[in-house]
Amino acid sequence: MPVGEAPHGGQGLPYAARVATLSIRDEVPLRLGTVSLAAGDAFPPQLPDLTDVAVKALTTYRAEALQYGPRAGLPELRRWVANYVGADEVRVTPEQVLIVNGAKHGLDLICKLFLDPGDAVLVTSPTYQSALGIFRAYQAEFVRVGQDAEGLDLDDLEDELGRRQRTGRPAPKLLYNVFEFHNPTGVTVSAQRRQRLVELAGRYGFLVVEDDPYRCMRFEGVPVRPVQSWDEQGRVIGLGTFAKIVAPGLRVGWVTATTDVVRRMASVKSDGGSCPLTQRMIFEYCRSGYLEPHVHDLAKTYGEHRDQMLDRLAHDLPEATATRPQGGYYLWVRLAEDVNTEELLPLAARSGVRYLPGSLFYPAAGPVNYLRLAYSFSSPSEIAEGIARLAGAVRELRRSS
Amino acid sequence: MPVGEAPHGGQGLPYAARVATLSIRDEVPLRLGTVSLAAGDAFPPQLPDLTDVAVKALTTYRAEALQYGPRAGLPELRRWVANYVGADEVRVTPEQVLIVNGAKHGLDLICKLFLDPGDAVLVTSPTYQSALGIFRAYQAEFVRVGQDAEGLDLDDLEDELGRRQRTGRPAPKLLYNVFEFHNPTGVTVSAQRRQRLVELAGRYGFLVVEDDPYRCMRFEGVPVRPVQSWDEQGRVIGLGTFAKIVAPGLRVGWVTATTDVVRRMASVKSDGGSCPLTQRMIFEYCRSGYLEPHVHDLAKTYGEHRDQMLDRLAHDLPEATATRPQGGYYLWVRLAEDVNTEELLPLAARSGVRYLPGSLFYPAAGPVNYLRLAYSFSSPSEIAEGIARLAGAVRELRRSS
Repeated sequence: MPVGEAPHGGQGLPYAARVATLSIRDEVPLRLGTVSLAAGDAFPPQLPDLTDVAVKALTTYRAEALQYGPRAGLPELRRWVANYVGADEVRVTPEQVLIVNGAKHGLDLICKLFLDPGDAVLVTSPTYQSALGIFRAYQAEFVRVGQDAEGLDLDDLEDELGRRQRTGRPAPKLLYNVFEFHNPTGVTVSAQRRQRLVELAGRYGFLVVEDDPYRCMRFEGVPVRPVQSWDEQGRVIGLGTFAKIVAPGLRVGWVTATTDVVRRMASVKSDGGSCPLTQRMIFEYCRSGYLEPHVHDLAKTYGEHRDQMLDRLAHDLPEATATRPQGGYYLWVRLAEDVNTEELLPLAARSGVRYLPGSLFYPAAGPVNYLRLAYSFSSPSEIAEGIARLAGAVRELRRSS
Repeated sequence: MPVGEAPHGGQGLPYAARVATLSIRDEVPLRLGTVSLAAGDAFPPQLPDLTDVAVKALTTYRAEALQYGPRAGLPELRRWVANYVGADEVRVTPEQVLIVNGAKHGLDLICKLFLDPGDAVLVTSPTYQSALGIFRAYQAEFVRVGQDAEGLDLDDLEDELGRRQRTGRPAPKLLYNVFEFHNPTGVTVSAQRRQRLVELAGRYGFLVVEDDPYRCMRFEGVPVRPVQSWDEQGRVIGLGTFAKIVAPGLRVGWVTATTDVVRRMASVKSDGGSCPLTQRMIFEYCRSGYLEPHVHDLAKTYGEHRDQMLDRLAHDLPEATATRPQGGYYLWVRLAEDVNTEELLPLAARSGVRYLPGSLFYPAAGPVNYLRLAYSFSSPSEIAEGIARLAGAVRELRRSS
């Protein structure tokens, strides 16, 4: 007896009002030989060897690893994270750290705790596409903040906040941003602007969500202290992840916030605790001193990937303008105005290269001639091949239009 | 610089309206020597040895295990689950299976997809306490359905549905229940009632969420076909989990539904895919033929635990009335009417035994003299000690009042 696949099955189902506008993107598996410049996956040859820590977790810590874990995370890992972010001058106790199933899960819990339908959320345009999806599921309304080479335009932000206040509109609930190697533009917000943002958040009463996955992936230049390190009023919530420094698949990230926010987030974390096996593996990996040299190697590799991608773009697609980020995983690429990167997508896929069209990163309609290229996953020779195929697809699109 | 722990830190934070009523229960670690009869953890000596499958996942399938996985789950595991539930006559394709981070995560996604604030949700009273918490976070309103020894009272349900229809109130969005070994009462819903429920769901246009974690933990009697096996209109969503048959800590469960619902649920699953490492471990464990004998052993053990607990209760607390479930993890225990099990809790904790007070399981105020005892985690001798301590705490409470 088949379950609900009759012609009328699924019709008339009482979906919630708020998901009516969600778009559903199928996840198409990569064709063999396709070069993926789309997702921020890790470079496969540099995935760490985690067999030893897995065996340790499943033998020495077997009962812990295989039972339900504490909802806020393993105490040792919370302590480790508190120390880790402390090195960047974010002073938190272990009780101010919540372990989550990746940073996206942390953002989802923040929405669950703070957002009511129709609440205003401040974002740059473009911004991280997955964050937009999460906010949309909570029926947030986007308020765009400008950005330039120094990051968030705080004059623009202050104008907007003042305008809302004068016209009696409620203050936005929160501002979301990737401050270090912004996704997708690669921009890093200056120290001065970070401090001013904390001051504005206190004055206008909104929260700042500081998503900081790429901090360690710096190839050059000087890191800027996290926004949260300047916060003394609990206005900043930090999101961190082991996805970019150990492995994406383990699905372990963290939130740093006040003790009260962490307790409330744990109370809406309806997951029976994050996986204690992967938490234990990560803790054992990190405390054994593997992390620092591993991250150092990764940053070196990704720096070379970036250079290769910039080089190949300049050679194969000279009409493109690309950012040159000092770190992170992505280039943000502008093509000629007549090249629509959504129309380009199927041609590129047929040529064997995948990327994300810029339209995904805009909270509302935006320019159509941008795309995001990830240089993390593919090798330098694959990057060369991918960019050549992309250039071919652009030529093909132009010929056909 | 401490983050937000100044006296005013956290005050004035713009929490969402919908979480204002959430209670926050601290997770108190067990005192050494405390007997836990509270949570549905696995019996530690029977946690499986997963080192081989972990090593295989981290070597043969390393790139898969450590990268982001497909959002709907590993294709092999989705196929395996489709076959597994097929053995119980739930006919689904792999595309109708969504892998989630435990069944609670599945329920959370169902709420996200289907519930608007104020929507009515049908539940028994008492019902699974964690489900109540998840529904509350989505501002559901509970509509109680009676139950007796055959499970859900469908006459009562039909009366309620008819009454709502006649008075112009919207139909409930969904009915949630554990049909096989109900949590906490242990009742199993009869086949006839399951069929009639499917018919009512079609007629009145609500969904049935069939949470089925304990199906394999049957000690005696005959299993009843899942509600979903009778559904031809896609009105039933099934929730399953590896927590009770492999290990809770791996955090892998599944949802079975129509292809459309699975695709939409995947689209609001903002987690970067469930952990491919634990999915691969489970798939390798199951396909190697370990599962069936393991589950057989578990059911035998838990049956013995149940008998021991019933025996000790009859001996030490003869005034208590306990259910005698044919399977599952729990006894639902009624004490004398003057014994308030919330007041008993601190006395029991001081005596070294923990349980869940019945009040947690009621969607609204309910009787105060019930408690739930889990026999899964503790050994027969620990169960004996725990029940003796519980009886001592009851005597102490009576003396003091």
